[in-house]
Amino acid sequence: MGPRQSFGRATIGESEQEGSGLDTFPMGSLGSFYMSCCLCVNLGLLCVVLVVLWNWRWRGGFAWDGTEAQFNWHPVLMISGLLVIYGLAAVLFRVPWGWSQKKLAWKLVHAGLMLAALMLAVVGLQAVFDVHRSLNIPSMYSLHSWVGMGAVVTFAWQWFLGLVGFLLPCSAPRLGGALKGIHVWTGQAVLMLSLAACISGINEQLFFSLDGVLAKAYSSLPAEALLANTLGVLIVAFSIVVFGILSKADWRRPNANTNDEATPILLREEAI
Amino acid sequence: MGPRQSFGRATIGESEQEGSGLDTFPMGSLGSFYMSCCLCVNLGLLCVVLVVLWNWRWRGGFAWDGTEAQFNWHPVLMISGLLVIYGLAAVLFRVPWGWSQKKLAWKLVHAGLMLAALMLAVVGLQAVFDVHRSLNIPSMYSLHSWVGMGAVVTFAWQWFLGLVGFLLPCSAPRLGGALKGIHVWTGQAVLMLSLAACISGINEQLFFSLDGVLAKAYSSLPAEALLANTLGVLIVAFSIVVFGILSKADWRRPNANTNDEATPILLREEAI
Repeated sequence: MGPRQSFGRATIGESEQEGSGLDTFPMGSLGSFYMSCCLCVNLGLLCVVLVVLWNWRWRGGFAWDGTEAQFNWHPVLMISGLLVIYGLAAVLFRVPWGWSQKKLAWKLVHAGLMLAALMLAVVGLQAVFDVHRSLNIPSMYSLHSWVGMGAVVTFAWQWFLGLVGFLLPCSAPRLGGALKGIHVWTGQAVLMLSLAACISGINEQLFFSLDGVLAKAYSSLPAEALLANTLGVLIVAFSIVVFGILSKADWRRPNANTNDEATPILLREEAI
Repeated sequence: MGPRQSFGRATIGESEQEGSGLDTFPMGSLGSFYMSCCLCVNLGLLCVVLVVLWNWRWRGGFAWDGTEAQFNWHPVLMISGLLVIYGLAAVLFRVPWGWSQKKLAWKLVHAGLMLAALMLAVVGLQAVFDVHRSLNIPSMYSLHSWVGMGAVVTFAWQWFLGLVGFLLPCSAPRLGGALKGIHVWTGQAVLMLSLAACISGINEQLFFSLDGVLAKAYSSLPAEALLANTLGVLIVAFSIVVFGILSKADWRRPNANTNDEATPILLREEAI
């Protein structure tokens, strides 16, 4: 029987057994789970496509020269990294196909995707700081910038603590267990900060750009405004689907609360 | 033994028994739970105080006359209703003190608080639409307005479906059970929409008001900007704490997933 076929066999009492995840996925839930995942991936891809299209078609495209074309990397990299890749990396552990596999590979993919997301976010910040310095525009005064910087700094700490608590062989064995709850909670917090930063940033940018002088007024809802507002709605939808998947208790790894989490994975037998 | 003393007795296997909630709260978690609740209430109150202070001290106070003084009710009512009262009503069911009480009272308080929140939000919308009509300002074009309207409409549907599924005696007995997952998921969605709408709204309002002509520029971070940015940070913190409380599996009602939820409470014996 292949892994897919075994999903339907809902069992009770096996949930604490290492590696029994494939058997414990709730009967009838598998279709909903994969539909939610599919929706999540498609919404994420659509967000990336729309933010690239917006900045390429209406904002003058991309460059790295201290002009507004460099600024355009900012929304693209923040939405791609801090929201889409981050959100997908967060739901990775819910995929039941991986529950019977070695955890090391999944944790490394999770950490690797998160590192990629963090690096994109840092380059996205660099883009806006460079342009502001070059054009003599003040930085870090708006609520958008406070919330966005809060997201990146919290994310950086989250990644560092995750590395120390769950991956490094030098970590104290019980550190991972103690950190688990904080890791999950901080992970949610970063996604909420990212959502608020993305929506306020798009809103702000449209008021700046569509001022009725350099471009049609935002209030007349030109094509650019419709596209960027739609991007905002998709960002909200993506975040809601990610939170929906993460909060559904039935879809958590069966051994999510066992002591297995307390041992840094590079120290475990399965990691060899 | 009073209810408080009995919290420490962590038991295994009783979690599905009706009314055993007081005994099943995880040992050692009670302090963290009440500290989180206390933090939540204080952050919520602080948000209300700051938004009132901002609009009273710097935006010209309050009136209902089609001027900007009427507009000032908009942020106050949306933050008080759609965010603070909504968030507090959502965490109400986590308070273990109420787990051994009759559910009807708690459900009515939950529904009542949510109705109050919804009414405040509707009046908050009325405030802004009146002013826009009176001053000939277009409505419903910004991303902030799309996300905010999405929050209120979703919330109204959520309240109506909650009434039909969980309260009315004419509801089909199994309707509540089927709606439960959707109710929880939509509840999260409304809070995320509210958060995004509040942050983008405050950000937008500060760019409009602090334009360097009618008032000091936002970029010079005058006292008003510092206060309103701080309000935004507190709104994010409140939302993160609410989500933290709601997502902690240990703090859920022990019978949250039993069939008890499937029967509209006005039909149950305990409701008499």
